[in-house]
Amino acid sequence: MKISDEYSGRVPLVVVGAVELDTVITPFAQKWNVLGGSSSYASLAASFFGPVGMVGVVGMDFPRACIETYRRAGIETSGLKTEKGKTFRWSGEYQLNMNSPRTISSELNVFAGFKPELPESYRKSPFLFLANMSPTMQLDVLSQARHPRFIVADTMDLWIKTDRTKLNKVISQVDMLMVRDVEARMLSGHQSVIKAARDILRMGPDYVVVRKGEHGAMLFSRFGMFIIPAYPVEDVEDPTGAGDSFAGGFLGSLAKAEIVDYRTVCEAMVCGSVMASFGVEAFGVNRLASLSKSEINQRISHFRTIMTGCEKRAQKKLAVV
Amino acid sequence: MKISDEYSGRVPLVVVGAVELDTVITPFAQKWNVLGGSSSYASLAASFFGPVGMVGVVGMDFPRACIETYRRAGIETSGLKTEKGKTFRWSGEYQLNMNSPRTISSELNVFAGFKPELPESYRKSPFLFLANMSPTMQLDVLSQARHPRFIVADTMDLWIKTDRTKLNKVISQVDMLMVRDVEARMLSGHQSVIKAARDILRMGPDYVVVRKGEHGAMLFSRFGMFIIPAYPVEDVEDPTGAGDSFAGGFLGSLAKAEIVDYRTVCEAMVCGSVMASFGVEAFGVNRLASLSKSEINQRISHFRTIMTGCEKRAQKKLAVV
Repeated sequence: MKISDEYSGRVPLVVVGAVELDTVITPFAQKWNVLGGSSSYASLAASFFGPVGMVGVVGMDFPRACIETYRRAGIETSGLKTEKGKTFRWSGEYQLNMNSPRTISSELNVFAGFKPELPESYRKSPFLFLANMSPTMQLDVLSQARHPRFIVADTMDLWIKTDRTKLNKVISQVDMLMVRDVEARMLSGHQSVIKAARDILRMGPDYVVVRKGEHGAMLFSRFGMFIIPAYPVEDVEDPTGAGDSFAGGFLGSLAKAEIVDYRTVCEAMVCGSVMASFGVEAFGVNRLASLSKSEINQRISHFRTIMTGCEKRAQKKLAVV
Repeated sequence: MKISDEYSGRVPLVVVGAVELDTVITPFAQKWNVLGGSSSYASLAASFFGPVGMVGVVGMDFPRACIETYRRAGIETSGLKTEKGKTFRWSGEYQLNMNSPRTISSELNVFAGFKPELPESYRKSPFLFLANMSPTMQLDVLSQARHPRFIVADTMDLWIKTDRTKLNKVISQVDMLMVRDVEARMLSGHQSVIKAARDILRMGPDYVVVRKGEHGAMLFSRFGMFIIPAYPVEDVEDPTGAGDSFAGGFLGSLAKAEIVDYRTVCEAMVCGSVMASFGVEAFGVNRLASLSKSEINQRISHFRTIMTGCEKRAQKKLAVV
């Protein structure tokens, strides 16, 4: 369901994060100034599940075509500010294994002084995603939200090292921390992600999701543990934003379910993985922006067979005794 | 079920590989001359599912207590030769991440000239595991086996680099190749394990299992794909032999099922993962040698809940609309 004209009242899911124009180099290709940033990836991934409102900031150079990309996806953009100056620009290079990129340059531009503001129609949203940004910005958003029901936050090594006190405050106020394995380890000091997750759960959240890139993701909570592989992608074109696509698919699915329990959270993990798998199939948000709902449903159901070992083609039997 | 006195006739599963005395250093501890080697790990892991016969060679220095370890597990040892000289000794060191070890020394000793011989009671075994050893040795075993129904082979970078022609011959004659991701990539030249597995399937086997250590394993076949995480282990004491424990659990389960089809193969993947998770919990084969069947069943059923996201503790609901 896309946001529709008849939708009125609160936006069920709000995504706060960066909007970027990224330059990405891989061993196979290079693209300049593709639409990216956590807010773009997460909003687009979430948009297939239901209405979503994005919060972010762009500069005067931000292409009109990018705004059109959000609008075509039905994303509510009243929280997207345009300010004097240039849009956040990042460039990075991937090696053959397509793991963590080497950052070539990172020009925050208008994002440096970003003061996220939730429009009135976003303030009562039940679901909120605080993408990776400074804990100060995250706390600012939290102070504006009125009775959010389920908040997911991401973070990165920089804030763990430089702004730990505020970051701990953020973590204590959210329902789920969703981070990469490196950050989970760094937050806790444990090499074991199981121990790391347990430490983070003690800091406040009901749930911790540890993302492992091509190796999938792990959900930890006092209600149980759930481990899923990544949906297998044969040709990864650009891994940038995979974690944010995951978060968007995850929260979109959860917001659609309207109920948060262990079952819907696990279901949301599957949707998150599937959206991440689409996200990496093209540069920037290109694949997410051109997807159809049926492609998503098809992949979700294929993913289930891959995870349970029940393929329809399973016919051959070989009796040995 | 352990091998029992009343068991007579052919051994349903034969494991051929190295028997070693390993010295393992981790950031947390060091152990000298612990029982190891692919044949030990795989046989012990398989022994919980049904009768297994091992093939290997040891030197005059091989401790009697180690033979007792096999016997207590009900492993048939008529294929274990004792020769003049010393037992294969390997020593290696793991870093904090407990991934691939750095080999400190590798003294093949009696294993260098090993001519594997299948005792008469092994020759008609339906299930056969050819652990990592030279393709020459593997072909030698294949020539002795009479109508095996399901053969699994492992290999390593050394043979891919130095004995490719014979290795290809082995691969063309087995039903499943079970290798680490690095070997799958090396065999095919593809960075993508999906493409690598497809290439290997074209070389002959019906199935390819790509092992990814702590990140689980992937099964590829023309009947379907199955991806499982590793069973989460909080305290990894010694990762040595995890792949062989996996292979042992896998083949033990399959031999017990007596039917090879996509379903039993997927089921066997679960058993393989669980046995690998036990294997890494202590130095050498110590954990495998002291396990109970009920511990295994408990872990198999816990693993299923982790993979499907259905924990019994999942109670908390939070309605948001």
